Amino acid sequence: MSITFPKPASRDALEKGVELTPRFDSNGLVTAVAQDSATGEILMLAHMNAEALAKTIETGQAHYFSRSRNELWLKGETSGQIQTVVELRTDCDQDAILLKVKVGGDGGACHVGYRSCFYRLLKSTPDGGFKLTIAES
Amino acid sequence: MSITFPKPASRDALEKGVELTPRFDSNGLVTAVAQDSATGEILMLAHMNAEALAKTIETGQAHYFSRSRNELWLKGETSGQIQTVVELRTDCDQDAILLKVKVGGDGGACHVGYRSCFYRLLKSTPDGGFKLTIAES
Repeated sequence: MSITFPKPASRDALEKGVELTPRFDSNGLVTAVAQDSATGEILMLAHMNAEALAKTIETGQAHYFSRSRNELWLKGETSGQIQTVVELRTDCDQDAILLKVKVGGDGGACHVGYRSCFYRLLKSTPDGGFKLTIAES
Repeated sequence: MSITFPKPASRDALEKGVELTPRFDSNGLVTAVAQDSATGEILMLAHMNAEALAKTIETGQAHYFSRSRNELWLKGETSGQIQTVVELRTDCDQDAILLKVKVGGDGGACHVGYRSCFYRLLKSTPDGGFKLTIAES
């Protein structure tokens, strides 16, 4: 890994500066959101450690850190659903990354088989409760 | 809080079922992404505990859990930037929530003064490095 990430010099630098100074949590992770660059659809939410973020910047392909497998993960390595990064953003306090991506393979992102991992929405039921239902888009 | 959240009966129920069974982490939190329901713009990323999620469902207004203040947080309570929930989704493994929202007040979401917290994007520099720059949209 050739890219390293410094710590912010101040809160002002963190929020308004030009340096990427990610605030990794106690597990060394930031949250990452992948959004389809063409449609704006939110595809998935995952995590990155410093290595995954550096690899993403270096290669232009989204890398994450799999918390379940405890390893670096090139998204699409087996499925073909490679996410080519069109734009990488960070948020005000730099503990989250937004990737706008073009998806390869069949265009999906979710292991369950849907394009987006967010395929279920909450709907009210007549008894005053609520249920999840598969979204139409 | 009248709404409670059961545990999933199985992995199949978690991923394909109709019950909202959020997988709160060891701090009792799930990640929440707020997206402008009209434009698709990602506004912010925050966290919810069970109470914040229940309040969001009950009231139709986004509630989060502030990790820095360690308290329930009705987004917009002081700023007027109330987020009215148009749609609430969960992801395959139910550790993330997506809110599609209409924003009140001045329409913004970020305390730094931008509409979206993701106001900075990474750009390459001639020396082979990269810098953050304010996004134009």
